[in-house]
Amino acid sequence: MASTSSLTLSQAILARSTSAAHGASPSPSSDRLSIPSLSLPTFSGLKSSSPTSVPSAGRAPASAHARRRRLAVARPVRAAAVETLGSATETALIEKSVNTIRFLAIDAVEKANSGHPGLPMGCAPMGHILYDEVMRYNPKNPYWFNRDRFVLSAGHGCMLQYALLHLAGYDSVKEEDLKSFRQWESKTPGHPENFETPGVEVTTGPLGQGIANAVGLALAEKHLAARFNKPDNEIIDHYTYAILGDGCQMEGIANEVCSLAGHWGLGKLIAFYDDNHISIDGDTEIAFTESVEKRFEGLGWHVIWVKNGNTGYDEIRAAIKEAKAVKDKPTLIKVTTTIGYGSPNKANSYSVHGSALGAKEVDATRKNLGWPYEPFHVPEDVKKHWSRHVRGGAAFEAEWNAKFAEYEKKYKDEAAELKSIIKGELPAGWEKALPTYTPESPADATRNLSQQCLNALAKVVPGLLGGSADLASSNMTLLKMFGDFQKDTPEERNVRFGVREHGMGAICNGIALHSPGLIPYCATFFVFTDYMRAAMRISALSEAGVIYVMTHDSIGLGEDGPTHQPIEHLASFRAMPNILMLRPADGNETAGAYKVAVLNRKRPSVLALSRQKLPNLPGTSIEGVEKGGYVISDNSSGNKPDVILIGTGSELEIAAKAADELRKAGKAVRVVSLVSWELFEYQSPEYKESVLPSAVSARVSIEAGTTFGWEKIVGSKGKAIGIDRFGASAPAGKIYKEFGITAEAVIAAAKQVS
Amino acid sequence: MASTSSLTLSQAILARSTSAAHGASPSPSSDRLSIPSLSLPTFSGLKSSSPTSVPSAGRAPASAHARRRRLAVARPVRAAAVETLGSATETALIEKSVNTIRFLAIDAVEKANSGHPGLPMGCAPMGHILYDEVMRYNPKNPYWFNRDRFVLSAGHGCMLQYALLHLAGYDSVKEEDLKSFRQWESKTPGHPENFETPGVEVTTGPLGQGIANAVGLALAEKHLAARFNKPDNEIIDHYTYAILGDGCQMEGIANEVCSLAGHWGLGKLIAFYDDNHISIDGDTEIAFTESVEKRFEGLGWHVIWVKNGNTGYDEIRAAIKEAKAVKDKPTLIKVTTTIGYGSPNKANSYSVHGSALGAKEVDATRKNLGWPYEPFHVPEDVKKHWSRHVRGGAAFEAEWNAKFAEYEKKYKDEAAELKSIIKGELPAGWEKALPTYTPESPADATRNLSQQCLNALAKVVPGLLGGSADLASSNMTLLKMFGDFQKDTPEERNVRFGVREHGMGAICNGIALHSPGLIPYCATFFVFTDYMRAAMRISALSEAGVIYVMTHDSIGLGEDGPTHQPIEHLASFRAMPNILMLRPADGNETAGAYKVAVLNRKRPSVLALSRQKLPNLPGTSIEGVEKGGYVISDNSSGNKPDVILIGTGSELEIAAKAADELRKAGKAVRVVSLVSWELFEYQSPEYKESVLPSAVSARVSIEAGTTFGWEKIVGSKGKAIGIDRFGASAPAGKIYKEFGITAEAVIAAAKQVS
Repeated sequence: MASTSSLTLSQAILARSTSAAHGASPSPSSDRLSIPSLSLPTFSGLKSSSPTSVPSAGRAPASAHARRRRLAVARPVRAAAVETLGSATETALIEKSVNTIRFLAIDAVEKANSGHPGLPMGCAPMGHILYDEVMRYNPKNPYWFNRDRFVLSAGHGCMLQYALLHLAGYDSVKEEDLKSFRQWESKTPGHPENFETPGVEVTTGPLGQGIANAVGLALAEKHLAARFNKPDNEIIDHYTYAILGDGCQMEGIANEVCSLAGHWGLGKLIAFYDDNHISIDGDTEIAFTESVEKRFEGLGWHVIWVKNGNTGYDEIRAAIKEAKAVKDKPTLIKVTTTIGYGSPNKANSYSVHGSALGAKEVDATRKNLGWPYEPFHVPEDVKKHWSRHVRGGAAFEAEWNAKFAEYEKKYKDEAAELKSIIKGELPAGWEKALPTYTPESPADATRNLSQQCLNALAKVVPGLLGGSADLASSNMTLLKMFGDFQKDTPEERNVRFGVREHGMGAICNGIALHSPGLIPYCATFFVFTDYMRAAMRISALSEAGVIYVMTHDSIGLGEDGPTHQPIEHLASFRAMPNILMLRPADGNETAGAYKVAVLNRKRPSVLALSRQKLPNLPGTSIEGVEKGGYVISDNSSGNKPDVILIGTGSELEIAAKAADELRKAGKAVRVVSLVSWELFEYQSPEYKESVLPSAVSARVSIEAGTTFGWEKIVGSKGKAIGIDRFGASAPAGKIYKEFGITAEAVIAAAKQVS
Repeated sequence: MASTSSLTLSQAILARSTSAAHGASPSPSSDRLSIPSLSLPTFSGLKSSSPTSVPSAGRAPASAHARRRRLAVARPVRAAAVETLGSATETALIEKSVNTIRFLAIDAVEKANSGHPGLPMGCAPMGHILYDEVMRYNPKNPYWFNRDRFVLSAGHGCMLQYALLHLAGYDSVKEEDLKSFRQWESKTPGHPENFETPGVEVTTGPLGQGIANAVGLALAEKHLAARFNKPDNEIIDHYTYAILGDGCQMEGIANEVCSLAGHWGLGKLIAFYDDNHISIDGDTEIAFTESVEKRFEGLGWHVIWVKNGNTGYDEIRAAIKEAKAVKDKPTLIKVTTTIGYGSPNKANSYSVHGSALGAKEVDATRKNLGWPYEPFHVPEDVKKHWSRHVRGGAAFEAEWNAKFAEYEKKYKDEAAELKSIIKGELPAGWEKALPTYTPESPADATRNLSQQCLNALAKVVPGLLGGSADLASSNMTLLKMFGDFQKDTPEERNVRFGVREHGMGAICNGIALHSPGLIPYCATFFVFTDYMRAAMRISALSEAGVIYVMTHDSIGLGEDGPTHQPIEHLASFRAMPNILMLRPADGNETAGAYKVAVLNRKRPSVLALSRQKLPNLPGTSIEGVEKGGYVISDNSSGNKPDVILIGTGSELEIAAKAADELRKAGKAVRVVSLVSWELFEYQSPEYKESVLPSAVSARVSIEAGTTFGWEKIVGSKGKAIGIDRFGASAPAGKIYKEFGITAEAVIAAAKQVS
């Protein structure tokens, strides 16, 4: 090992210590460290793989000596020696490495004849410094819990991240994966997808979502650190890095979440703004001339400008150092780069943003950057340079595991709780905390019943946290046993999102994807899902089990009128893949909805809840909700009712009332609660037949929303009662009556169809 | 008339000139004015009512003398005398008037026992100054074209606007309307709705939408002024005012549109930020601590802070004066107010935000503000003070009509074009400009065919303008004959929205509602309607005929993957009231979709367009599209095909191919294009039966999107081929094949069902 003297000061200070892995002496502070046993469990998420059991690297089990050496990286101050490289050699190698990233991106896009080479070419230097010098991760276990998180908010530039993961030694991105970029079933899809590519934290591409996810990841870190860290053991301690482009900056969601990040003082969030002045339509001059720096200062961020992001390695390093020194504010590092850097004819133009360079320009770029290699080639010295991350990463994790073991010894209860958050394991019997109700229980709005469930769950589910977009007292989402998550009280669990629905949803995606056991919920009026639909879709796509608590779910909210009354929203979520739309009718169904929502960690749930009071109905149950649709009352026999009445949520009461009347008139009537179409769809054909027998075509549904989609349930001979127009401003009862959402209408329809 | 000496300078300068209506001498500059004839048509929108024919005011036709006097207000500099009021008297009367506004709001909310009194109580002073001293409008013709526009972005405070409209003499808000606030079929719904209440420009309530609409209104003014104003006749010349609250400020959409307003230099947009530090969840300290001023400076706005918005009338006046003097930037006037000002126990707290004060607190507030009157009482002197607006407004309009007559004489062609924009009348035969195609026309993507239509229409439809959210070259939306609408070229028609989908949609709502003949279109990838859905819903609700050009409408976009591939979006818009979802299959259908979209001025249209090339199919037609669903080919007789194949958009080709194969095998097959479900729904039962005969249950549909909703079309015995999962990143052909969106699948299904 050489001394650090050949490095610049910033390099020396910033360089991520890999000294242990490279054989430096143990730190004098190693007296604080105990040597972990090889049998120490790793808490690395649901898909965790122990670094001591990774076969692909072909390493022998670490010796005690090697392990001890790795532990040296645990020193609180990580400034340390870096590997043997003289300054000039080092810079040359780094540039070679940076060009490797550029050409991997160029080559992959070229082979696919599809993709976005411009961003990787411009951002390769900052990407390189992050993954090679700054970030702490374990390539052989992408789910190591205390890893630094990286989010490419400008997701179209995913080849940057794939190249970095490849160089760093992640098994998810091997050479063949780069070669199958954007192909069917490859691990390198057209935008980063966490569910496809281990090492990718969140799913980005839709602009602005990534920076919002990053805020969620940083919130989760700050929260967990505040809850679990001890003066002698900071068991949670990682940074969140993001790269966002001009496009992300223009999106409103980015402003929402950056306002919150500033408000919360997320000091360990460091965002790189790739300021390349080019978007798809050309120069940003045509639509984006604001002062981003001034705006971010207004938002309470620390702002740094790196004027030369193309080759200013030391500038980038110094900026990161400065960012880390600012602990009470997030930092925006504006890095001015050239999109498509290196391409002699296409750099700094929109033509390099989203298309392959073309063979001719690839050649010209190879010449221009002095790159003599074949496509997809990683030069040996670059490969060797990066190879240390496999060992270094394993050391990071082993060190952390040791730290955790120590934590567990000393703080047993906290460790158990933290472990459940890390592993995503719910405590046994948690569901018993959910309240149950009888028909004698007082009538109540399902939004209030929801609050009872949330507060009951908060006592037994350690990872439950969340809040509302400035409607906590309407959505009824406050956890009474906790205070507010704020800059100086981050250990608390009531998150105040302000009127920022879109940012709220995307922040919750980040929280959910931070730890398998964090269960974020968020709330607004159901109609305002329109503001956050893009984030909700990414919950569904990226398997983030967010719970969406959506109150005021129909015209039943009354006087606020049509701008506030959802009509098409139930249908619009029933049509969305991998999301559970639940519309509980009373107390038991609300409890059931929460049971389903908490259990579904890879599928978000939307709970549509009433503003108005509803009675607790005979026959409703948690178990019924779990099946999506079930019979709540029936006076027929032989699975042959004269008519089946089907309701959801607040209209189930109306169906039940109509059934009472019809039965008085001698009819055999079944009432079905169809609380979740998706769950019902999953049931066996036999079960479905037992609820909705195919022989019975006399069916009437009632729901205070669009009838769109109901034909599937009631069939062409049945009748769907609903609302296929916008709502109105008036007292709720009046609107129900005027719109014909009444028991009388159900009775009339039942007579008509049966 | 008294002299102006008793007024402060700012009052004198700012005071809206009503001198003509009050008998001041004609201005010396009246030599520029000709006296209009009484038969001068008024160009005041579709619902226009001529000020000379308004019966409700009971006025006799204006004499030539009176008309001449009114015209005096046409002086380019409007600083002038105001009505007889000494300073002390005036201030007392103004305070009385402001308190009238406060108590009308208090009383209406109290009577309804529902609503938001806090904002009107705090914002009454700025509202008063705007409507009584600053704005130019004609209460008896709310659609007078050159009126100043006012938008209450914080729409929950609608009682402020209703009180102001009432005092100003609008027929839409009479005393009985105030008394039926928030009741069934009243003209005073729970949030401002342009389609219910003449005088309300746009529909607000969902936060952030209003300020975005205001940007659209200001854009429209700047555009029309640049196109039509002449050095000697500035026929278009009005301001756009908005009031937005903390909630609006937190919403991302507000930042998007304010960034654009700064970029475009919308100097005649003046926004009041009601800085009351209270939102529903309490003090804004809990979620909103950014520096709004700094942010807006970053966005390129002029920012003024009025520290005393409760009683600082002169401060407010001076701020407006300053704002008007800054012509190259929009202005944000931050007005610090007390929410619920006047309520001794509830002011400055969230409890006054969204609930009635309660009888006791109403009494306390009456005492506190010295208000001895009965509920809904407008004191006589206040009434008298405001009464001048009916005369003054008529004068404004008459003056403008005269100005227009002069304009028309001198600039005949421009006047005709402007008139068509004002009246919303399309030139005769405009639809002949739409291109038509034959099966021999080259295959093309419908996004390219869309560009052909847009460019064809731009030549004949003077109000067509729009653009894309940074995807112009992908959405194919550039109008080739025009340049970019920019700060210094506002007469152009290509609007560059940047990556701001939500703001784009809401700005287009503002443009559409500015002039009946402005037809805004806007574009992004279809999947990103998720970002702008809230604005699109308000298009539908508020009858804004925006054209949404949504390309890359399925998995057919290929490699970008599931984040970019719409699945549930067609269904989600089919479920939305009052919006037209159109998915054309080829050239003729794209032209048909544009014909429908242009004709539907009170219903927005969404055009889902392909990225990939599609053949021009035999049998498609513009007329077919107008019916929503129609037969494109059929070899059956007697309206009894063996099977009906139904497709939309890019899958119609697949249905046609499958039909060819099935016919070869001897089947009688009908192919139906169901390009718009909504339009088809409107057809007569006979027509529908002729396309989809009820006796034929053998039906197969194919669409590269969710099957949700298709049961209605194919029935329980038919089969819907679609995609009920998220998409994938791969070449489009591969995904189609893997997902089974193929002619083979249609053929197999057809054999199964028939």
